[in-house]
Amino acid sequence: MQALVFESGRAGVRDVPRRRPKRGFALVRVLLSGICNTDLELVRGYHGFSGVPGHEFVGRVEGPAASRWLGKRVVGEINLGCGACDFCGKDLARHCRRRRVLGILGHPGAHAEFLTLPEANLREVPRELSDEEAVFVEPLAAACEILEQIPVPGDTRAAVVGVGKLGSLVAQVLEDVGARVTRIGSGDTAKAASYDLVIEATGSPEGMPRAIELVRPRGTIVWKSTHHGPASFDGAPVVINEITIVGSRCGRFEPALERLREKRVDVTSLVSGEFPLYEAKRALAAAARPGARKILLRPEGGR
Amino acid sequence: MQALVFESGRAGVRDVPRRRPKRGFALVRVLLSGICNTDLELVRGYHGFSGVPGHEFVGRVEGPAASRWLGKRVVGEINLGCGACDFCGKDLARHCRRRRVLGILGHPGAHAEFLTLPEANLREVPRELSDEEAVFVEPLAAACEILEQIPVPGDTRAAVVGVGKLGSLVAQVLEDVGARVTRIGSGDTAKAASYDLVIEATGSPEGMPRAIELVRPRGTIVWKSTHHGPASFDGAPVVINEITIVGSRCGRFEPALERLREKRVDVTSLVSGEFPLYEAKRALAAAARPGARKILLRPEGGR
Repeated sequence: MQALVFESGRAGVRDVPRRRPKRGFALVRVLLSGICNTDLELVRGYHGFSGVPGHEFVGRVEGPAASRWLGKRVVGEINLGCGACDFCGKDLARHCRRRRVLGILGHPGAHAEFLTLPEANLREVPRELSDEEAVFVEPLAAACEILEQIPVPGDTRAAVVGVGKLGSLVAQVLEDVGARVTRIGSGDTAKAASYDLVIEATGSPEGMPRAIELVRPRGTIVWKSTHHGPASFDGAPVVINEITIVGSRCGRFEPALERLREKRVDVTSLVSGEFPLYEAKRALAAAARPGARKILLRPEGGR
Repeated sequence: MQALVFESGRAGVRDVPRRRPKRGFALVRVLLSGICNTDLELVRGYHGFSGVPGHEFVGRVEGPAASRWLGKRVVGEINLGCGACDFCGKDLARHCRRRRVLGILGHPGAHAEFLTLPEANLREVPRELSDEEAVFVEPLAAACEILEQIPVPGDTRAAVVGVGKLGSLVAQVLEDVGARVTRIGSGDTAKAASYDLVIEATGSPEGMPRAIELVRPRGTIVWKSTHHGPASFDGAPVVINEITIVGSRCGRFEPALERLREKRVDVTSLVSGEFPLYEAKRALAAAARPGARKILLRPEGGR
């Protein structure tokens, strides 16, 4: 099958062997995959990654023949816990010490014609959703995760730092629960120490110093960006102003599917281009351009 | 009056004018003051400080003559809010945008024969407490602040990183509420990702990377250290492991006074020396020595 492959800092589309799904796994034909900033970070060396990237997808189950999922249109949670360690036993499987992560860590990803995932990771996509909407379930779930981590009362003054894809999804989710949201790009001015809640979604090391400047004393920062290299900021205001910083990664898919089904979040306006999988290198370049929003990849069989 | 004065990175004991208390303020004769790591950071350039340092003290009110506090033995909360800004109006006076802080920011401190403070900041010291115990109310309040910020259920696996004075107070307070506490010095080994709660109390930039290594996924770090210069650490584990970091500074005095009165915390074993105020320079050197614990200063009239 065709797949995008990262190796030694280079990206290319190649023919690679299609995996046979192991016991408990499904074989999924990818209909559409989305390029995430994490993919761009992986190719820059984040995680020392090599292999097939891609963790945002919608697909159709094509095997095994006996699977109850056969023929269903699905999205899939990206973390594969070992099922045996102390974290898996404590409902922290997404944080399993030996976890693999679709397209990020030890498990080939979605920028390919096929992928495999444990059936337990699959979620059926409601008929009302287009493929172009369903491919946003994973990043939208990451935005919804915030609501499972911290209370967001209706009149919260929130700032979303970073006006990219994740920033837009986060802003919409916060508005959906009644927060007053200010979107803050890198050139925008805003009053210091005046937001109850600041979401750092810049994807860059400059995000945290900005977030720390904006949040009020005893306010909360949700830290969303992972990037290659260390974060460096003056920690004294965090201590002195008693700021809470909450790291936030993936979320459960159900709240995201529900928001999309009820049309409470608009995602399709975030798409800035679609490329066939065999043009994935051009697609990566397009995704890396300043101001680019979501770039989608469609394998040959993805219609 | 005699006072320790920091100026242009140098420390010395000098004669300085005694302040007259403004309306609403009391004049307090210092009986005993404690040297905090923050004082050592101030002399190294933290905050661009110059003036009289010192914010841990016990004293006796000597003015004004009409004060209802006259003759009482007191400790005092160190933050002076402006009383007018949006934070002061919201019960965030300790975080007032224009606040002054005893011996740290814009208000002369406690390493002197006398200090002034708003009467509203004073707390009477119960008769059962010695001066040597009462001088610990401020740092003990900073330790107790943790309990006002986060829930600490009885069986919490907690690690206190930093075995200095603050670390010891924090460990005792956490044990007092039933947590299982491991004290971790810089050379100690400990299992990574295995503590529900980690308190960073090292006073050094190395503390946060260590705390991040020790806390379990979705666990909490309480960040206590302020130091000169930026903090730098790899933020990816904070995001990926969804760690919560809570900055923590001063606390209310009442819980600290109560714990001392009920002998639930031992502080006097933390004293490693007492110097007369006029020997404050020697005292600072002693406080800066590795392994030093609390060094106290006693002005001439402090008996």
